[in-house]
Amino acid sequence: MIAPANPNKAVILVSGGLDSATTLAIAKSQGYACYALSFDYGQRHRVELQAARQITNQLGVIEHKFIQLNLDNIGGSALTDMRIEVPITGITHQIPITYVPARNTIFLALALGWAEVLSAYDLFMGVNAVDYSGYPDCRPEFIMAFEKMANLATKAGVEGHPFKIHTPLINLKKTQIIQAGLRLGIDYSLTISCYQANSTGYACGVCDACRLRAEGFRVLGIADPTRYLTQSL
Amino acid sequence: MIAPANPNKAVILVSGGLDSATTLAIAKSQGYACYALSFDYGQRHRVELQAARQITNQLGVIEHKFIQLNLDNIGGSALTDMRIEVPITGITHQIPITYVPARNTIFLALALGWAEVLSAYDLFMGVNAVDYSGYPDCRPEFIMAFEKMANLATKAGVEGHPFKIHTPLINLKKTQIIQAGLRLGIDYSLTISCYQANSTGYACGVCDACRLRAEGFRVLGIADPTRYLTQSL
Repeated sequence: MIAPANPNKAVILVSGGLDSATTLAIAKSQGYACYALSFDYGQRHRVELQAARQITNQLGVIEHKFIQLNLDNIGGSALTDMRIEVPITGITHQIPITYVPARNTIFLALALGWAEVLSAYDLFMGVNAVDYSGYPDCRPEFIMAFEKMANLATKAGVEGHPFKIHTPLINLKKTQIIQAGLRLGIDYSLTISCYQANSTGYACGVCDACRLRAEGFRVLGIADPTRYLTQSL
Repeated sequence: MIAPANPNKAVILVSGGLDSATTLAIAKSQGYACYALSFDYGQRHRVELQAARQITNQLGVIEHKFIQLNLDNIGGSALTDMRIEVPITGITHQIPITYVPARNTIFLALALGWAEVLSAYDLFMGVNAVDYSGYPDCRPEFIMAFEKMANLATKAGVEGHPFKIHTPLINLKKTQIIQAGLRLGIDYSLTISCYQANSTGYACGVCDACRLRAEGFRVLGIADPTRYLTQSL
């Protein structure tokens, strides 16, 4: 596919998972000059950063920046405090302990800083509020409030270059996200969604992220390229 | 002074400068259990962190956390890119090159994360929109937008524990800030405001931060305890 001409730069948050890979492919398909940003934040599933690197290599970006940030210094989540176990019994209606306090606010804030330096006024984030873990900072009302805040916070924002936070997946089902990504040529075997993937990239198969991902492929009847340690629990 | 009984925890951003020291003293005077947060963010005036440590030692806090964050990896400011010189010719009506893209958004986002882990719903920041460098992220409209966003972003916010961002200095003149701090017993000789203080804590005397600070003491007719390299330029 030939992307439409688009002279604009965009900063895309790339975790290494399925959703952010799809988001990057969408930004590419819209012709943006893509700058990928990943965070080495003390996450349990740090192996996802290798996936992030493979994804940006496959899809192609102008630059891929990694920011180091010790959120394990703050803790308070099963993803940043190794003493707290990742739940494996299925998705509930409560905000789970894998919620990382203020994570998307922190990630978007850093993306905003880099975007302003780049004169990139478009930010892309693969948040989803349908097939998700119930995190408050994945919802449209959060994204809208962040965007409004960003345009009061920055020199660019107050001088007539407003930032736009694009969340192309926010209202999609996991099946729709996978279909969109496959149409755009993503190799999902490169991506890692699992909250506790091991150091060789094998997924647990039973955390919320694994369940949401596996269910998406299952409903579509498409072979799931994820390398699972177990699928039988 | 005996602080009023206040069972609440607060997170206070402490840079090592005059304003944040005063803000910490105000939070202490209101009886909060104070948790100080400082950032080693690749700033030119990294020596301010030594001042931050001395201030929290003098005033007393429950904990003083330092977060490392390489904003020099992003650059775009005279404070985080050593190739860009700090202006020394006086304050203008434009946003100066010492503006660090999205800095207060980033700092408040990290403070929010720590506050949520602590169950601290009060955050204090010494921003000022009167005698200041014109940074957009020091203005009341930014603070209000951040607070609104924070309460949509967080588990605590959506579950009935809203965060409040306190900015007790925001409408004060520098003279009023100094007077408030002196009443609360601050030793301003411990603080460092200069954007390019040297490694032994001497201030340049000619950057915007030095000029605002020196003018405050001068108008009050109070001896300025700052150690300046020069006051004659």
